[in-house]
Amino acid sequence: MKKTKPTSSGPKRIAIVMGSESDLKVMNDAVGALKEFGISFHLEVVSAHRTPKKMYEFALSAVENGYQAIIAGAGGAAHLPGMIASLTTLPVIGVPISQKNLQGMDSLLSIVQMPKGVPVATVAIDNAYNAGILAVSILANSDSSVRSKLEKFKTLQIERVAEMNKKIKPTK
Amino acid sequence: MKKTKPTSSGPKRIAIVMGSESDLKVMNDAVGALKEFGISFHLEVVSAHRTPKKMYEFALSAVENGYQAIIAGAGGAAHLPGMIASLTTLPVIGVPISQKNLQGMDSLLSIVQMPKGVPVATVAIDNAYNAGILAVSILANSDSSVRSKLEKFKTLQIERVAEMNKKIKPTK
Amino acid sequence: MKKTKPTSSGPKRIAIVMGSESDLKVMNDAVGALKEFGISFHLEVVSAHRTPKKMYEFALSAVENGYQAIIAGAGGAAHLPGMIASLTTLPVIGVPISQKNLQGMDSLLSIVQMPKGVPVATVAIDNAYNAGILAVSILANSDSSVRSKLEKFKTLQIERVAEMNKKIKPTK
Amino acid sequence: MKKTKPTSSGPKRIAIVMGSESDLKVMNDAVGALKEFGISFHLEVVSAHRTPKKMYEFALSAVENGYQAIIAGAGGAAHLPGMIASLTTLPVIGVPISQKNLQGMDSLLSIVQMPKGVPVATVAIDNAYNAGILAVSILANSDSSVRSKLEKFKTLQIERVAEMNKKIKPTK
Amino acid sequence: MKKTKPTSSGPKRIAIVMGSESDLKVMNDAVGALKEFGISFHLEVVSAHRTPKKMYEFALSAVENGYQAIIAGAGGAAHLPGMIASLTTLPVIGVPISQKNLQGMDSLLSIVQMPKGVPVATVAIDNAYNAGILAVSILANSDSSVRSKLEKFKTLQIERVAEMNKKIKPTK
Amino acid sequence: MKKTKPTSSGPKRIAIVMGSESDLKVMNDAVGALKEFGISFHLEVVSAHRTPKKMYEFALSAVENGYQAIIAGAGGAAHLPGMIASLTTLPVIGVPISQKNLQGMDSLLSIVQMPKGVPVATVAIDNAYNAGILAVSILANSDSSVRSKLEKFKTLQIERVAEMNKKIKPTK
Amino acid sequence: MKKTKPTSSGPKRIAIVMGSESDLKVMNDAVGALKEFGISFHLEVVSAHRTPKKMYEFALSAVENGYQAIIAGAGGAAHLPGMIASLTTLPVIGVPISQKNLQGMDSLLSIVQMPKGVPVATVAIDNAYNAGILAVSILANSDSSVRSKLEKFKTLQIERVAEMNKKIKPTK
Amino acid sequence: MKKTKPTSSGPKRIAIVMGSESDLKVMNDAVGALKEFGISFHLEVVSAHRTPKKMYEFALSAVENGYQAIIAGAGGAAHLPGMIASLTTLPVIGVPISQKNLQGMDSLLSIVQMPKGVPVATVAIDNAYNAGILAVSILANSDSSVRSKLEKFKTLQIERVAEMNKKIKPTK
Repeated sequence: MKKTKPTSSGPKRIAIVMGSESDLKVMNDAVGALKEFGISFHLEVVSAHRTPKKMYEFALSAVENGYQAIIAGAGGAAHLPGMIASLTTLPVIGVPISQKNLQGMDSLLSIVQMPKGVPVATVAIDNAYNAGILAVSILANSDSSVRSKLEKFKTLQIERVAEMNKKIKPTK
Repeated sequence: MKKTKPTSSGPKRIAIVMGSESDLKVMNDAVGALKEFGISFHLEVVSAHRTPKKMYEFALSAVENGYQAIIAGAGGAAHLPGMIASLTTLPVIGVPISQKNLQGMDSLLSIVQMPKGVPVATVAIDNAYNAGILAVSILANSDSSVRSKLEKFKTLQIERVAEMNKKIKPTK
Repeated sequence: MKKTKPTSSGPKRIAIVMGSESDLKVMNDAVGALKEFGISFHLEVVSAHRTPKKMYEFALSAVENGYQAIIAGAGGAAHLPGMIASLTTLPVIGVPISQKNLQGMDSLLSIVQMPKGVPVATVAIDNAYNAGILAVSILANSDSSVRSKLEKFKTLQIERVAEMNKKIKPTK
Repeated sequence: MKKTKPTSSGPKRIAIVMGSESDLKVMNDAVGALKEFGISFHLEVVSAHRTPKKMYEFALSAVENGYQAIIAGAGGAAHLPGMIASLTTLPVIGVPISQKNLQGMDSLLSIVQMPKGVPVATVAIDNAYNAGILAVSILANSDSSVRSKLEKFKTLQIERVAEMNKKIKPTK
Repeated sequence: MKKTKPTSSGPKRIAIVMGSESDLKVMNDAVGALKEFGISFHLEVVSAHRTPKKMYEFALSAVENGYQAIIAGAGGAAHLPGMIASLTTLPVIGVPISQKNLQGMDSLLSIVQMPKGVPVATVAIDNAYNAGILAVSILANSDSSVRSKLEKFKTLQIERVAEMNKKIKPTK
Repeated sequence: MKKTKPTSSGPKRIAIVMGSESDLKVMNDAVGALKEFGISFHLEVVSAHRTPKKMYEFALSAVENGYQAIIAGAGGAAHLPGMIASLTTLPVIGVPISQKNLQGMDSLLSIVQMPKGVPVATVAIDNAYNAGILAVSILANSDSSVRSKLEKFKTLQIERVAEMNKKIKPTK
Repeated sequence: MKKTKPTSSGPKRIAIVMGSESDLKVMNDAVGALKEFGISFHLEVVSAHRTPKKMYEFALSAVENGYQAIIAGAGGAAHLPGMIASLTTLPVIGVPISQKNLQGMDSLLSIVQMPKGVPVATVAIDNAYNAGILAVSILANSDSSVRSKLEKFKTLQIERVAEMNKKIKPTK
Repeated sequence: MKKTKPTSSGPKRIAIVMGSESDLKVMNDAVGALKEFGISFHLEVVSAHRTPKKMYEFALSAVENGYQAIIAGAGGAAHLPGMIASLTTLPVIGVPISQKNLQGMDSLLSIVQMPKGVPVATVAIDNAYNAGILAVSILANSDSSVRSKLEKFKTLQIERVAEMNKKIKPTK
């Protein structure tokens, strides 16, 4: 799918935050997904543990900043998505990031097992691309051009499988 | 929060589906959350494994039926949320339901570990209430009255903690 | 065991499907096992999540296509084997494929923990070779030449252990 | 589905074995599945650990006894299915049985993680019913009346979901 | 050990906080431990997710309130101990509380797997008593009477084992 | 097998220790196994954590006390078997005891994952009976009457399975 | 933060022990943390399993040696922190060290799941740096200059996140 | 410790078996341990799954072959140690061997979770050295020279830690 340039005017539609610069290698895929759909976004390092005040302010002003969803990635005892969710009424999408040990199982549980009343929409470990697509599907609810692109996106996936079948052959 | 009656006219805003009648004891909490916010919903048993054709048709017609999100609960090798997500461009919210063994870890992994391009917004094991709240937060993007109710909902949670502190006392 | 050439005429006896081209490095071992026994097979990429309609049609026509078993490999939230099993009366053999995180535990649980009435015959993680041998043992029920080859196969395994014992020696 | 009486003459088509009398409460469901389809079966306690010789003889004579598949259930360090598979060329279906601790995860891994060349067709923890259905689907390959019953069985599952939908209603 | 009454004057020495009133059944044991040692304490429900602002203020004023350690208990995606640790320079002791599913493994990982620079002193699942004893051992560094009591406490444990040995006898 | 009375004279042959009186409900089965074989034993509560000095002395004098193996049961962070193993040259058999959470997985790993040079012979979770049988098999190396009893014990197990088969019948 | 030289006179304030020389690559980070804060420390290999007597003596003399906390790192069946905690009234901080298999889950459970009365303040797997910071926060209770440094340390973390945000940019 | 040459005459004292030649890289450490103590041993590849008959004969003749313990290593669904234990009255020591996925957790559970009456003395994952030492400690019961060597072995471990402390120094 050809990448569409986000229109520069107006507020960013999605915020992508992560606990550390080192999470960018995973969170880049959320950026990539949004760019594929021409969705404007804000990108920032916001650490629940090192910059709790900044996180607090970021989350409290997210609605008035015009975001329609927040994508938050974190590893280990991943508190960032859940804490943001406690401070905003926007949908928060959590990306568990794997670290050296435990393969992301710790961050998955820290993000998904939220208490009653404070959901985080959790995606697969290290799968920031899916966080982007999920954000896009939320935008599609009030933007029919995004819906159309999503439908084209599904068609493209079918074509890619068809192409795989043209070249697949066993090597044994 | 006083429950608001959903207005009867027009399409339902959220669909709640589950793999079996027995999942209703968990999925009832999604119903409860939507009712709290006066959100209309459709409720149906749709099994990925026993009624694959029905699931197929349900998912393919979901957009034109006017839903803005689908909440799908399933246990064990929980394929329902992921399969619906593969067939629609709506946001799909997955509720892992615990069964006799493995305490929902199997359904959590079956729902959350989706491949690139097909996200499921996964909530905590057996926490269908949070699936409802997440759906509400998605609706709030294009409905300011829902946003207001969500804000009031957050305020109420603060009050409930205050009430807890009035009566809490150690018993040792 | 010398590989026997499958006879070209007639329908393929086993179908091998996988969710993505990248699964072929694991699923090749199923191919290898079938070739060892001279069993004809069909090989195709069929994705539950990206090509749900194609999967649907593949599974519904599997009996009339003359397959006697279907081998399906998938990773992560591995829905392919279970969805095919929901759509056919053929025995479906599932191969959990490990990915970067969780070492295949997610795909194992997604494949094996099927609900009542829809079994998937699950083999070890990444052990597509065993999926092939299991398919062969199913064919042996109505093909005595396959039974004979399986018996020879068991004898060969004994011989291989004998050969190991000729050369094994501690290096400490 | 009305239960069909197995025809009494001729050999039993399926063998059901288990490590202990106490496993019968789970393995009964395999019996039930076979009875639903009118499939004759042999039922016996055969313990890999307490009666290794008996197990050895059972497995070695299984082909000539005319069985077309063996269903073996076991808990804990569940060696019975794998050991039988090492001694026969018949398809062996393993049922992991949960015990007081570990919820069947130990028996699942002990049954499914078989080495190259010796597959066990593993079903879900405690899901002996599915072991029965899997055996039926193997028989269907050479018995079109069994195939027809399996197709009717799938139709019945659809009807059951329809009935669920007639009575399902939220209680909140 | 006879319980010593905490002296009423002066600030409380330890703060015990928990995410919900329902956590008190576990956290009571921390209260019990502190009472055993005559240590004054403050007890409050402070929820990271429902009362993030209150938590923020509690943590930021903890040093000036004169606490010497904070005991924080939480279940599920247990963010309370870690968030408090991000906001104070006091030692924070985390108590993972088990819930219906996962037996506290989720809260253990959410509490213990903290990132570099923000430690939480984690104790065993549901073992709030040990959180109390750990707090006491921290106080002992600057209070020799507490040190003496801790030494007596260790002696008492030895005596309890001696008493056990007076009555222990096999029942088989 | 009729229980044989241990001869009263001379030292006890096996020591059974456990961390707490409450472990006796599990460790009783080790007692039972030894009594079945007429093996004399010493039974005592020795806690690694509450009576480290006592444990130290117990372990250091175990050889001269004439024991030929030590059976040690413990739960949670189960240090007792490993610490005794570090202090004696006798074979130490560890019994992981399950507690409220984690189902004994914590004690299994704490007991079995010993470092190079300090083995603990670990048996199944809560399976103190097997610890007794393992101790008996060690004694059998230098006591042919014990060997004979063990052989008879194996024969009895075969007979028990035969009896099970007399009464087993499906209830479906 | 510029490293401050520990004043050479007087006793060391913190003891850092580990089970083997090979643990130093992880435990070095505890050293680093203490050096950052100018805290004097004692460093020693003390093995619970290979040098139980030495461990015993180390722990029993720790209070009179003037330490205010003990940091103990260990892998596998990690008994060192818990055994030291059973022998001293000082706060003991445990560092689970990951080994080739199980990624530190075994040492985490062996360290954190301590029984009632004998806490170990457990930090994240391989996160010895946090053990150092936790020790520093304990010292801060009776040393206001350490408290000031900890406050500056928190400020520095905020600045580091600000710097990250100056250079972060998506690469997709 | 200088290696002592085993005396060539008479039967081997310990048997070391493994499921495949590829297990030798782990099982070599059992060889090394026995050589350190000058214990004669028999080494052989015996596969429960590929050579069940050979395993059967090996185990049944182990007592009369004069072994005093059997060390059996296996990976995955590791049936070898348990099956041998079911066929002999000798103590059987099981070594779980890790494979590409699951890090040996599958083999650990397959080996340790044995049913009542058939114990396997399980050691740590991949720790064949400890299997050797455990075998030595069993031999020591009836061979005082082995006991003496074991005591010297413990002393040597203390010396090694002392040497470590001569050179250990932090690199930060």
